[in-house]
Amino acid sequence: MVDNDERRAPAHRRPSEGLEARARAGIVVTGTEVLTGRVTDANGPWLVEELRARGVEVGQVIVVGDRPADMASALRYLAPHHELLITTGGLGPTADDLTAAVVAEVQQRPMRVDAALESRIQAIVDRLYAVRGWDTHRDDVRAGVRKQALVPDGAHVLEPTGTAPGLVVPAPDSTPGPPVLVLPGPPRELQAMWPAAVAAPLVEAALAGAVPLLQSTVRVWGPPEAELAAVLRTHDAEHDVSGLEITTCLREGELEVVTRYSPAAQDAYTELEATLNSAFGDRVFSTDGRTVDRLVADLLVDAHATVATAESCTAGLVAARLADLPGSSRYLIGGYVTYANEAKSAAVGVPADLIAEVGAVSKEVAVAMAEGARHRAGTTYGLSVTGVAGPDGGSADKPVGLVHIAAAGPDRTRQRELRLGGGRDVIRARSVTCVLHLLREALTGQE
Amino acid sequence: MVDNDERRAPAHRRPSEGLEARARAGIVVTGTEVLTGRVTDANGPWLVEELRARGVEVGQVIVVGDRPADMASALRYLAPHHELLITTGGLGPTADDLTAAVVAEVQQRPMRVDAALESRIQAIVDRLYAVRGWDTHRDDVRAGVRKQALVPDGAHVLEPTGTAPGLVVPAPDSTPGPPVLVLPGPPRELQAMWPAAVAAPLVEAALAGAVPLLQSTVRVWGPPEAELAAVLRTHDAEHDVSGLEITTCLREGELEVVTRYSPAAQDAYTELEATLNSAFGDRVFSTDGRTVDRLVADLLVDAHATVATAESCTAGLVAARLADLPGSSRYLIGGYVTYANEAKSAAVGVPADLIAEVGAVSKEVAVAMAEGARHRAGTTYGLSVTGVAGPDGGSADKPVGLVHIAAAGPDRTRQRELRLGGGRDVIRARSVTCVLHLLREALTGQE
Repeated sequence: MVDNDERRAPAHRRPSEGLEARARAGIVVTGTEVLTGRVTDANGPWLVEELRARGVEVGQVIVVGDRPADMASALRYLAPHHELLITTGGLGPTADDLTAAVVAEVQQRPMRVDAALESRIQAIVDRLYAVRGWDTHRDDVRAGVRKQALVPDGAHVLEPTGTAPGLVVPAPDSTPGPPVLVLPGPPRELQAMWPAAVAAPLVEAALAGAVPLLQSTVRVWGPPEAELAAVLRTHDAEHDVSGLEITTCLREGELEVVTRYSPAAQDAYTELEATLNSAFGDRVFSTDGRTVDRLVADLLVDAHATVATAESCTAGLVAARLADLPGSSRYLIGGYVTYANEAKSAAVGVPADLIAEVGAVSKEVAVAMAEGARHRAGTTYGLSVTGVAGPDGGSADKPVGLVHIAAAGPDRTRQRELRLGGGRDVIRARSVTCVLHLLREALTGQE
Repeated sequence: MVDNDERRAPAHRRPSEGLEARARAGIVVTGTEVLTGRVTDANGPWLVEELRARGVEVGQVIVVGDRPADMASALRYLAPHHELLITTGGLGPTADDLTAAVVAEVQQRPMRVDAALESRIQAIVDRLYAVRGWDTHRDDVRAGVRKQALVPDGAHVLEPTGTAPGLVVPAPDSTPGPPVLVLPGPPRELQAMWPAAVAAPLVEAALAGAVPLLQSTVRVWGPPEAELAAVLRTHDAEHDVSGLEITTCLREGELEVVTRYSPAAQDAYTELEATLNSAFGDRVFSTDGRTVDRLVADLLVDAHATVATAESCTAGLVAARLADLPGSSRYLIGGYVTYANEAKSAAVGVPADLIAEVGAVSKEVAVAMAEGARHRAGTTYGLSVTGVAGPDGGSADKPVGLVHIAAAGPDRTRQRELRLGGGRDVIRARSVTCVLHLLREALTGQE
């Protein structure tokens, strides 16, 4: 498969019809701000993964705005084919947060105020407002608390993890159908409520009999997708892979092979992993779920090694990514954003003559930056990136997408020339991933 | 509204039932990698915004995996209530890319190979493979090209912008219904194809009569959501706002008030903007759509000013964000990632004694870092961030979320103490936004 945008490029996919039938859940994500992309939904994907681990499949996630008619329509559409429906969002204290009322209507259950719940929510709001010095005795605050304590008849209440309670609302008494699990929108509240949600009797019953699936990930650095596709085709022809659901995804030059399988298909998965290891050798950099970020962090800690950066076009992204993981102060000392040429000379000692001679985007300057960062910061390793991220500043000689990276270590300095496609953001992000892999290779002694 | 997670916190929303009836489009996003969150969908939100600008409303976006039954079911569910359906993804050359076949089935149209299209796709593939030195005369490549040239009977072909053609597939001849616009998954391909897609006769006809809506955004820095909600309530009571669809969203401390309205409601919008300006004064930092990033960039260029950074917990994110916009080399000189204490002293000259005395996370060290960055890099402004991002490293005295920021300028150094909630990522991201606002205030002379 040839694909110009690798943020979105499955090299090989396989429908999961081969796996045994599983319990299914349908998800309705609510909120105009999500529908229009001003806020990226984190809850849909999080729930899909949590449910998958429990052996529950999600076939569809529907994002709706704040219109009650759309929300009700989506719930009614999903109901016949699912054992459980889940909504996220729309549980706030204001009148436009409508989810509980819409679910009550769909499940044909009148709403009533749960007075004990109202007191508990009021206590939470009092505490939150006190911290900020706000007044909670206003009428609109009281009205909001009362609204959040409105519960559909027969619903099971999940205690608030923010201010909003969750709900498990049974199907109408007269009609069979799935219960609706109503969860709050803020991801931290939703995730905190999840253990109580899956333990609720109606949810537990809906998911009973689901066989948890295993998931394993093999990550490969370097080969074109076509090569992976050919390896998988050959493996398919020679092995029974009917128990495996294989998804591959190319992301920033890393090929991710994610396989889901029931415990009964463990041997089939072991064979697949052996095939990938044998085909790609040390280009397979992870089979235990670790990302390159985690691997590099672990390798640095194991080696008691430290690192510093010198960055031009990425302007801090490499250092920031090294600091993403908690505990990064054990190996990240610091770095230099050397965006202007004078900064390259002043901060990490790249000779101005060298820049004048070969240009700031060059193998020689990348090497000098990496060695300069290592030397100035006194670290085990120095990393550098210098390139043309565009959209302007390219030339025939040094086009947009040309990036030089280097990793200076105790033994020697590795360097690489990259020719990257895509826009400014893509070029910068991909450069960061490439230099992390260069550091990984230096740490493992890989050529 | 009180909300713990501000990435997802609409303070005030208003259903859009008040606006005149509009043409509606339904979107089906395909791909298991999107459903499971390994890839974030960029196409749904992009299409929602493009359609909105044309006066077409999208009520629902359905994300489905690669199962044909789910995809067909989603299309059949949306068809009765929409003038146009759009699919994204699943147009690749491999057998598991099924969208065209599913749409053909739903619209009851047999598929046939378009021989002329097959030659054009083959020519594209030949060019792409030649660049990479790959062989295109393999049977599987030929089969993939032929598959991509399979077109439902009566469909309008949109020329490939990658290798995959788009399609406009009419409703079944026997049954009225919306046409389905079939677009490729890679966002750059989809966006490049969009002008041809909306110009296709069936799409044009489906969207005829839609009145383009205007959209304006007011951005406010600082006030609690409750204060904004109260201002909006008072405005509602005193003005006719029935022609306005107002959505508010709190993001990293910035309150965004996005209003959509037909040209006839221009006066009502002007009144709303006046209310916000009068209530919040210079806390309103943007009414023309510019983000704080764009504003700061424009202010720096106008002032012929330059900037450098010294970052501890954000470790490069401030510099990287300053470099996000093309042309940033006009004002960003460079920066220092001073993660370890010794780096704070060596790189930007913070006295080791000072750190020992007041601690690395302190007002004094933030000021010294900002002034040190300004001095060392020779820039007009120096920005700094030092804080406890967690999850470890907090104390009773200096808890996780305590961050000191500073902006050193020609006249004086501004500094601020932040107490941020949320996890490590949230604390770091929010610190970046706060220091950009501090720079904005320095550039505008705001107190």
